[in-house]
Amino acid sequence: MHTRITELLGTRYPIIQGGMQWVGRAELASAVSNAGGFGILTALTQPDPQALADEIRRCRGMTDKPFGVNLTILPSTAPPPYEEYLDAALESGIRIIETAGRSPKEFIAKAKAHGAKIVHKCTAVRHALSAERAGVDAISIDGFEAAGHPGEDDVGGLVLFAAAARAVKVPLIASGGIGSGRAMAAAMMLGAEGINMGTRFCATQEAPIHDNIKQALVGAKETDTNLIFRTLRNTGRVLKNAISDEVIATERRPGGCEFEDIRPLVAGARGRAALIDGDTDGGLVWASQVVGLIDDIPTCAELIERIVTECREAMRQGLAAFEV
Amino acid sequence: MHTRITELLGTRYPIIQGGMQWVGRAELASAVSNAGGFGILTALTQPDPQALADEIRRCRGMTDKPFGVNLTILPSTAPPPYEEYLDAALESGIRIIETAGRSPKEFIAKAKAHGAKIVHKCTAVRHALSAERAGVDAISIDGFEAAGHPGEDDVGGLVLFAAAARAVKVPLIASGGIGSGRAMAAAMMLGAEGINMGTRFCATQEAPIHDNIKQALVGAKETDTNLIFRTLRNTGRVLKNAISDEVIATERRPGGCEFEDIRPLVAGARGRAALIDGDTDGGLVWASQVVGLIDDIPTCAELIERIVTECREAMRQGLAAFEV
Repeated sequence: MHTRITELLGTRYPIIQGGMQWVGRAELASAVSNAGGFGILTALTQPDPQALADEIRRCRGMTDKPFGVNLTILPSTAPPPYEEYLDAALESGIRIIETAGRSPKEFIAKAKAHGAKIVHKCTAVRHALSAERAGVDAISIDGFEAAGHPGEDDVGGLVLFAAAARAVKVPLIASGGIGSGRAMAAAMMLGAEGINMGTRFCATQEAPIHDNIKQALVGAKETDTNLIFRTLRNTGRVLKNAISDEVIATERRPGGCEFEDIRPLVAGARGRAALIDGDTDGGLVWASQVVGLIDDIPTCAELIERIVTECREAMRQGLAAFEV
Repeated sequence: MHTRITELLGTRYPIIQGGMQWVGRAELASAVSNAGGFGILTALTQPDPQALADEIRRCRGMTDKPFGVNLTILPSTAPPPYEEYLDAALESGIRIIETAGRSPKEFIAKAKAHGAKIVHKCTAVRHALSAERAGVDAISIDGFEAAGHPGEDDVGGLVLFAAAARAVKVPLIASGGIGSGRAMAAAMMLGAEGINMGTRFCATQEAPIHDNIKQALVGAKETDTNLIFRTLRNTGRVLKNAISDEVIATERRPGGCEFEDIRPLVAGARGRAALIDGDTDGGLVWASQVVGLIDDIPTCAELIERIVTECREAMRQGLAAFEV
């Protein structure tokens, strides 16, 4: 395929595996890149910048195709050394950085000096425009359906992708709720030139997470996600389970809720227990509404080929409706 | 164009003007049908069944193309005479009834006896399946982006359309957040065979509503809608204005909120003051997130031709990405 996104990334297909805490490691990123997509290692999944450099080396041993590094900048009282992680990625030869969270303004000059490009992930048109002004090379926009932090605006991808596509000049990647060739085709109709998938790539053979979680994704319906942390204005979409149900119940209790009320529920349980140890009720599991459309656990190569074939076929079938 | 929806409706294009209180009158329905789409008169906009019969006759004087009647069945302590409205429509020769709200089970046999078909509008896959089992001829499914009552599940169209399309065997109409040919193409990629538009048809020359409201739709961004009545589990998506902001503030106040707290805000102001009298802050105005993508007030014919052309062009451009 050819779009401005395949051009930017140097891939066969404009299909990106989004940065995901715990999941974005060499096993998955290399499998996606080997299959013609674009794999992404998540910087903060590694304990320190040196470990990220090691992981990049390990990934390079598993694929000769391009892959990137995600750097998610979240509000924190004890922030990790973001710039050192960035240095580790750039010095390891990474040429695509996916930023998310806060505006990447401060990292752009450094990335450019290394000949790297920045794909910025955001959740609103106004943030996309501000990132574009700051000089990013592509925008990845997350609709309301998305896993992780879909923002507070609650605009569905159907509207948000179209609104973003007509607002920005740089190429657009659609993200959130996408897991099939039909959805890829839909995103392209709305003006996106590539897609980002997170949850769907978690339900693959190569995703380095516990099989219990993959089965939970297969079993879930589109109504089986919860929006947590709304009261903190730091909304997260996660799989419905015992912990996320309890977080929501706490947030909704009459009289209001402070973070201190939620903290004991999520402390130490923000994903690792569930994703890695397989305790499906033991932690928060980011998941998009696309869980309702996931039925199997293919290899990344099977998944990507299926998506590309289905995408093209959907477009052909669509055009057939015009032949009367 | 040709899909199972154009076949069912007998139209040139699978583009439906959804039933809308105050808006679904002969001026708009006839304009949509004359332009190759499918116009719908809203039964309960008329004060009684006889007035509906008169409105159908008036509409027939304005178009020789097919149009339908919407019958929305909402919970009410003093329900209108639904069955008499249905009788008026069927006896006036209407052959497509759009039902919404409660399951249309009780009306199906009567409609079929008159040779009429039922398109049922709902907001969840489980409701679509139950309506299909009850014998409806098509499903119109409303995603989270939709105006009016998008339900309580909050599943975006991107996921919901695909989930519904693979669940039901009858043809699917996608609804909510659709206002352009790109969105029509996206809906078709996801498996829909037609689209339903409400908000977009309000911003047309022929919509029988005040110009102030049309201008407000043009001016609004995709973030300019409010979800009201969440506390009543009867969620409605409306344009952000003084009244809907106040409803939300009341619903969110600490200690909770009863309907009696909201009633004075909305009594007598549920649309007519705004839509007909043009007092943009004087009532609730149903509006979908598609307001962010509405820039002009064309005629229905201009709008429909533009949508069909853009839809086909988006599909062609999409396929071009595969030619490497």
